[in-house]
Amino acid sequence: MTTINDIAARLGISKSTVSKGLNNARDVSEEMRKKILETAVEMGYVNRRLQKKEKKLCILVENMDYRTPNQFGHDLILGFKQMAEPDGWKIDVIPLDKEFQRGIPYTVFMMEHGYQASFVLGFSLLDPWIHEFRTSRIPAVLYDNYIKENPNIASVGCDSQEGFELAVKHLVDLGHQKIGLISGPLDSYILKARYNAYLNAMDKYGLEINEKYIGLEYYINDSTRKYVPRLLGEGVTAILFSHDVRAISAITECEDRGISIPGDVSIIGFDDLPIAAHTQPPLTTVRQDRLALGKCGFYALSCLLNRVPIGSILLRATLIVRNSTGPVPRKSV
Amino acid sequence: MTTINDIAARLGISKSTVSKGLNNARDVSEEMRKKILETAVEMGYVNRRLQKKEKKLCILVENMDYRTPNQFGHDLILGFKQMAEPDGWKIDVIPLDKEFQRGIPYTVFMMEHGYQASFVLGFSLLDPWIHEFRTSRIPAVLYDNYIKENPNIASVGCDSQEGFELAVKHLVDLGHQKIGLISGPLDSYILKARYNAYLNAMDKYGLEINEKYIGLEYYINDSTRKYVPRLLGEGVTAILFSHDVRAISAITECEDRGISIPGDVSIIGFDDLPIAAHTQPPLTTVRQDRLALGKCGFYALSCLLNRVPIGSILLRATLIVRNSTGPVPRKSV
Repeated sequence: MTTINDIAARLGISKSTVSKGLNNARDVSEEMRKKILETAVEMGYVNRRLQKKEKKLCILVENMDYRTPNQFGHDLILGFKQMAEPDGWKIDVIPLDKEFQRGIPYTVFMMEHGYQASFVLGFSLLDPWIHEFRTSRIPAVLYDNYIKENPNIASVGCDSQEGFELAVKHLVDLGHQKIGLISGPLDSYILKARYNAYLNAMDKYGLEINEKYIGLEYYINDSTRKYVPRLLGEGVTAILFSHDVRAISAITECEDRGISIPGDVSIIGFDDLPIAAHTQPPLTTVRQDRLALGKCGFYALSCLLNRVPIGSILLRATLIVRNSTGPVPRKSV
Repeated sequence: MTTINDIAARLGISKSTVSKGLNNARDVSEEMRKKILETAVEMGYVNRRLQKKEKKLCILVENMDYRTPNQFGHDLILGFKQMAEPDGWKIDVIPLDKEFQRGIPYTVFMMEHGYQASFVLGFSLLDPWIHEFRTSRIPAVLYDNYIKENPNIASVGCDSQEGFELAVKHLVDLGHQKIGLISGPLDSYILKARYNAYLNAMDKYGLEINEKYIGLEYYINDSTRKYVPRLLGEGVTAILFSHDVRAISAITECEDRGISIPGDVSIIGFDDLPIAAHTQPPLTTVRQDRLALGKCGFYALSCLLNRVPIGSILLRATLIVRNSTGPVPRKSV
């Protein structure tokens, strides 16, 4: 086990300087303190005094509204806290951006604040700290993201495969066969997962997979403006969307063009955002239970903190059937 | 919420008879007691007195040695108990077979003994209780098995995909390109998962997928006798096995035939059974951490008992490199 002596020897400084650096003393320069912390992390040093003093976790949030009740981030965090706080953990919620991440290494940030682990929301593959997660020794759980091979990092999310299988089955029961997908581009873990889930579900029900039934585009309204008419032109009678926000944009698009939902086309989202029940027509969608996802996040962290190196926990998906899906249009039969 | 009155009304019997049935009193016939318990389960009745009196779980074991230290079943159960017992749970280990399952419905068995949930090891799709798991309201976690859509049932296992990706990467680094698979037939959840993991890993590394490189057969020694020479005849230089027992059978087969491992062919198992370190040559294999898997089982049950409907927890796989893998034979390059 790495001791303060080992760190001192590596850096060629005194034991007491190392100790001061680790304990945030004022008479050590900022630069030296970071060097000490980074070396301590690199060498696998465990600051037992800090660990025993306080049970502290942080939730790192990017690109996600977490202050408005019932919204995604809010409920994820609430679910996490509902499990963690009764277990004696103090939780800090830290909103941040890429700029912040460039300013301080993840491990140094965590050690400086005495956080034993983190729950990470809303990060993309472009976030600087994502690279640190590949080798980090500090347990972290990522929502809708996945880091390969590092036993200290786990993933939680809703089961895209189960969700899209339920969605396709529902459409097949209504007589649909030409089913399309509109999604963002495949540059994130979760969009790749949804895309593969769509392909597998189509394959499972023996339906034609045709690239002309698929539209991938970053900007939400652009994607629906471009692809809804194009897919309908190919004879598609039902469209899955990678997220509710895209499906809701399609509802507006169809209204503008006089396309009836579900008379001309059935649409299904993914998320079950609160607004999904209030669109016209109300949206059929795959529900991610946000509170349960937050709780999963804490279970996953508990595994890692107890040295049970899980890679992922998947939450069950459920299909919420509303009025945006209906029988296949007669002209298509 | 269902009450004793509801059950009495449904069955057309007195409240006190229902109460006696639920509480295992002697003056209720065996037949009536089963009827009461089955109806109680069907109606979603929760026996709060029983639940509060004792925290009891059971581990149902079929086809698995669990008494010998270091063996699979033993370590799975030990890991589970290591998490569950400090949390105040009493654990009973119940070995059983299909005959036993045919004699009593699962839900009745669980309620009779006051078990709140089960951890299920070694079941196959042919087990009678598997059908009950599709609709059961009693939380259960299945090792290496998966039940669709029932939020009361979760799955735990080691990540086959991660395991075979590590295995194929290791072989590619050694120069192998024609990599085969020998497995049991695809009639179980886990063998299908390993098979798909093999296909995906080959695809990921841009290697040829050829049905002539794949041998699926139930009987272990038959499968190696038939397919090891056949795959080598096709130019395969490395073989993945769905389980260590098959890889170990292949070692014997190769020895009999004068085929050198890894001189003529590299082989990789899956499990890291204790014996894998002691074969000649020692076996390169994907490790399933048995204790950690048992712990995962308890984490998964904890989720379900707290109404967090997870579908699965996957444990990280690691590749243990020993001497059954080596550089691709020169003649094949």
